Amino acid sequence: MNAKQLAAEAAVALIKDGMKVGLGTGSTAYFAIQKIGQRVKDEGLKVTCIATSVQSEELATSLNIPMAGFEELSYLDITIDGADEADHSLQLIKGGGGALLREKIIAYMTGHYVIIADDSKYVETLGKFFLPVEVIPFGWQRTFDHLSRLGCTPHLREKQGAAYITDNGNYILDCDFKKITDPGQLQTELNLIPGVVECGLFVDRAQTLIIAAADGQLTTYHKEVKN
Amino acid sequence: MNAKQLAAEAAVALIKDGMKVGLGTGSTAYFAIQKIGQRVKDEGLKVTCIATSVQSEELATSLNIPMAGFEELSYLDITIDGADEADHSLQLIKGGGGALLREKIIAYMTGHYVIIADDSKYVETLGKFFLPVEVIPFGWQRTFDHLSRLGCTPHLREKQGAAYITDNGNYILDCDFKKITDPGQLQTELNLIPGVVECGLFVDRAQTLIIAAADGQLTTYHKEVKN
Repeated sequence: MNAKQLAAEAAVALIKDGMKVGLGTGSTAYFAIQKIGQRVKDEGLKVTCIATSVQSEELATSLNIPMAGFEELSYLDITIDGADEADHSLQLIKGGGGALLREKIIAYMTGHYVIIADDSKYVETLGKFFLPVEVIPFGWQRTFDHLSRLGCTPHLREKQGAAYITDNGNYILDCDFKKITDPGQLQTELNLIPGVVECGLFVDRAQTLIIAAADGQLTTYHKEVKN
Repeated sequence: MNAKQLAAEAAVALIKDGMKVGLGTGSTAYFAIQKIGQRVKDEGLKVTCIATSVQSEELATSLNIPMAGFEELSYLDITIDGADEADHSLQLIKGGGGALLREKIIAYMTGHYVIIADDSKYVETLGKFFLPVEVIPFGWQRTFDHLSRLGCTPHLREKQGAAYITDNGNYILDCDFKKITDPGQLQTELNLIPGVVECGLFVDRAQTLIIAAADGQLTTYHKEVKN
């Protein structure tokens, strides 16, 4: 069993019968969904789930995990997701896959937000990973100017030579900040820029962070967060 | 000449040759655009303009006012626009017409932001006018929950029995806050909610507010703002 799989299984052990569960996206979350499917099948675990992506929704459905829509659930007991970066105070960069709004909505409706990752994602200071910022296409050049003035280099994400389009019809500007020393302050500054829909900073959201080393050793970090 | 027209003409008198000018939208801004068109025709006034709506763009073009796109201009010397509410410290509610993002982008790229209105729009405390909040359709019910928790009653704006769709493909939640005592704080709280694109609060943007009474008397308020 590989390191990501071990972290995923440790997280899935936190799920109890009757819980409403958020399913993450990415290589580590994949193992969590697999394990939930196994528990549904083997133990008759009763859960209702909502997914952070169409991809995860399809995987869960194929494993007979009961799914619900965003119009049906207003609260999730637990969500298990990955991250692109996590720092020592459990602040996160997410959304490298481009579905950051959907991931963020789920994070904000979750009681116990659990992040699982291999140790390459655990950093002293956020910012080596480009911070994804979802922006409205209209007037995006002006939004780009604003982001630049915050001290980063933004890059318009592209796909096959054209601007990458999110599920919401928007663009992504991947912002190279190098070091993000105050994620909370930066998140506020970003969200106040006209044209910014959402950024990939997840501040004071994660309560549990499970990091798996290559040798399979798990380290679990906890933080009190009022969600 | 009616009150709105007097306010509009006082504002247009601030425009000098060679300026880049933002054109507002609505019944008061209409008179400003008419007056700019007249100065272009009669005095040969040289300006380059950008409009807060397609409607104003068409009006300006019909008056032979030179127009530019958002990709061409990154700064405007002056913008003349209306407001749905303006308080004594020049904080504004705008976007009742549904184009709040475009209006806000222009407000943030303008050096001298001038608001013209009749005295029915001038209030002691903002909030009697429903605050428009533009939200992403995906998961909007959860965004609605978040807004409710800030102490307002949100109403999904409708048009002909269906959800009203903005130029950016989003919804508008008109939020009844009754009284907004700290617009700056509320703006930050709103922008941090996942799914909120923009809100109709324009905080510390207007430097000049020209209010016209029914009898034609103009009162001009000024405020130092670093844009």
